[in-house]
Amino acid sequence: MTASNANDIVLAEQHGPTCVLTLNRPDKRNALETATYILMNRYLDAALADPGVANIVLCGAGNFFCSGGDLLSLETRAALPVAERAALIQKLHDLVIRLKFSSKPVIAAIEGGAAGAGASLAFAADLIVAAEGSYISMAYVKAGLVPDGGGSAFLAHALPHQLAAEIALFGGRLPIERFAAAGVVNRIVPSGSALQTALELGQQLAEGARESQAAILSLLDGPDRESFERQLDAEKRLMAIALGSAEAAEGIAAFKEKRAPAFSRLAG
Amino acid sequence: MTASNANDIVLAEQHGPTCVLTLNRPDKRNALETATYILMNRYLDAALADPGVANIVLCGAGNFFCSGGDLLSLETRAALPVAERAALIQKLHDLVIRLKFSSKPVIAAIEGGAAGAGASLAFAADLIVAAEGSYISMAYVKAGLVPDGGGSAFLAHALPHQLAAEIALFGGRLPIERFAAAGVVNRIVPSGSALQTALELGQQLAEGARESQAAILSLLDGPDRESFERQLDAEKRLMAIALGSAEAAEGIAAFKEKRAPAFSRLAG
Amino acid sequence: MTASNANDIVLAEQHGPTCVLTLNRPDKRNALETATYILMNRYLDAALADPGVANIVLCGAGNFFCSGGDLLSLETRAALPVAERAALIQKLHDLVIRLKFSSKPVIAAIEGGAAGAGASLAFAADLIVAAEGSYISMAYVKAGLVPDGGGSAFLAHALPHQLAAEIALFGGRLPIERFAAAGVVNRIVPSGSALQTALELGQQLAEGARESQAAILSLLDGPDRESFERQLDAEKRLMAIALGSAEAAEGIAAFKEKRAPAFSRLAG
Repeated sequence: MTASNANDIVLAEQHGPTCVLTLNRPDKRNALETATYILMNRYLDAALADPGVANIVLCGAGNFFCSGGDLLSLETRAALPVAERAALIQKLHDLVIRLKFSSKPVIAAIEGGAAGAGASLAFAADLIVAAEGSYISMAYVKAGLVPDGGGSAFLAHALPHQLAAEIALFGGRLPIERFAAAGVVNRIVPSGSALQTALELGQQLAEGARESQAAILSLLDGPDRESFERQLDAEKRLMAIALGSAEAAEGIAAFKEKRAPAFSRLAG
Repeated sequence: MTASNANDIVLAEQHGPTCVLTLNRPDKRNALETATYILMNRYLDAALADPGVANIVLCGAGNFFCSGGDLLSLETRAALPVAERAALIQKLHDLVIRLKFSSKPVIAAIEGGAAGAGASLAFAADLIVAAEGSYISMAYVKAGLVPDGGGSAFLAHALPHQLAAEIALFGGRLPIERFAAAGVVNRIVPSGSALQTALELGQQLAEGARESQAAILSLLDGPDRESFERQLDAEKRLMAIALGSAEAAEGIAAFKEKRAPAFSRLAG
Repeated sequence: MTASNANDIVLAEQHGPTCVLTLNRPDKRNALETATYILMNRYLDAALADPGVANIVLCGAGNFFCSGGDLLSLETRAALPVAERAALIQKLHDLVIRLKFSSKPVIAAIEGGAAGAGASLAFAADLIVAAEGSYISMAYVKAGLVPDGGGSAFLAHALPHQLAAEIALFGGRLPIERFAAAGVVNRIVPSGSALQTALELGQQLAEGARESQAAILSLLDGPDRESFERQLDAEKRLMAIALGSAEAAEGIAAFKEKRAPAFSRLAG
């Protein structure tokens, strides 16, 4: 395992047989930057190579999972050529592919909420434990953006179109119970105990047949892998364009000014 | 927007940012004819081209959504060559492709029931609002027919095989709550208020980021589009054959004579 | 219909329009052997060819559906070359393809439990009736094995990844209500009455339009068939390897010695 420092934006710590990766920008609700993806990829590679690591838990510091891409840093991307925007999105996609097709089980532990790319990261996990009162939202549309990180691929594959469309078109905070009923969230636990339950599941998996688990994950992911990767490319293309749109400029400005976006002035 | 007359079999009316298409044969529970498909396609093209239209609502006159293909007109098709039957089914499929892959959100507002091709039209919508006590049924099998309009593609994609098979093999009226639990129906509302709720959702979407919504719809529909269109062709082929079968003759005769069909005499 | 003898490991009996295939090794909870697959294939071929058979019910003797592959006979496979192990798995896969793509509806009637390959057989049915208190478990991982018989294909297609992963990675006994909520189980009935309810559904289907039913099944199965068969091959490959693994040796030894397997000694 690669060691991490307490001030890093991602922490990697070993808890028994489980590698815990903690998104660690609690003052920003663990908003994601390109540096986050690069660092997580490095820790994940180390965890996957380490025979002492049976599985991986993904969580966030400060009782919140992840608010998604940092809108303030996204704002600056409008000035970049589309291809450079796409190259930055690819860093997220490299991470999502590693998580989703990991040969070791990945467990997301959600406190508070998982929004935007934070939701896409959670969807890439094999198991999701979520705290009572937490939410998952595909909030992209509220900032004039489109899902990336495989979020649209996951919704289109896992859920009937109407539920997927509601989640993605409105970007609202669906109660976690709706995701549990659908089979996307495995456990709802008391607030504050998501990480503990995730570690218990990790311990239970670690005591099981690990080679079987790796083969099972390859069987469950295999048939869909090619389609998933194609969809990541479609997301990248549309998100790179959206980042330069008038809608995104308005959505991000409204976020900064803490007001509701006035998209309808742009329509028609 | 193209204007419509109050006696047309389809009405197109603008309500704020939303184009409302109303199936308008209330004495026949809005049964579908080839002319319905052609007229709806024309209105849809106009609505998609009109920048003043943010989204589309699909509903039925007389507190009923749609009873499906008009069995009395289907009866005459047995006399046609199979290729001509298929050409008529293609008119429905042209409409379904326009609805399902529309760049503007489509909302179905169901009062009463959606049966046969009426169910397939509802499934092609991005969001479904349904009144308490309404139902969705794939009633084709009761007339010795097979699903068309993408109904089988939708069921096979959205639901586990056993639930899809129950719906399609028995053709019964599943309570709308079952579809809501599965994620196919987004809202169940008091009887008589489905259109109003659909218009509220339309208003909410219209105030959102419309370019994002179009991109999101293309992402959600994209991976499945080719397979969906292949399935429409398979439905067309099997439905064109079924329309000339002894089972369909018995099923349609029983419908006209208001008696239960006696399929078992045809078996073995 | 081919006649069967009361001592055969599979019984084939006609009940009205329905052919009932009964797994008949009640002292072994109807554990499956290669001979079971060969015999079932023979009975199925006869039932599919017989115009007097409208549909097929699959059940188990002794108030239990099926405990899966006979672990004691699987133990001897480690000594075989991988290609010979794969050839034996192919016998199961021949049966699953016949069941899943049968032109006549197949109904599974579950009492007690369906585990391992028993669960995969149930998933291959078009409709599932299950008794209160029964369970479905993909128990393979507990013996250091991986799903075969299409179990992983079914889970990956029918359910969101997180629910599928929980079922396959832990191998636990999910309550039957969870499968009913997801749409995998059609009816939960009082203990002891699963077969009777399955026969009632068979009778109802037999009175319906059988040609329509065959066409509907081909539409529901068609789009997924190629991917399903590819997945069977992937399962066969990984299961053939797993049968010779240290994990399987430990898992099967533990089963024989009625103790918990100690997989963690093998890890790291």
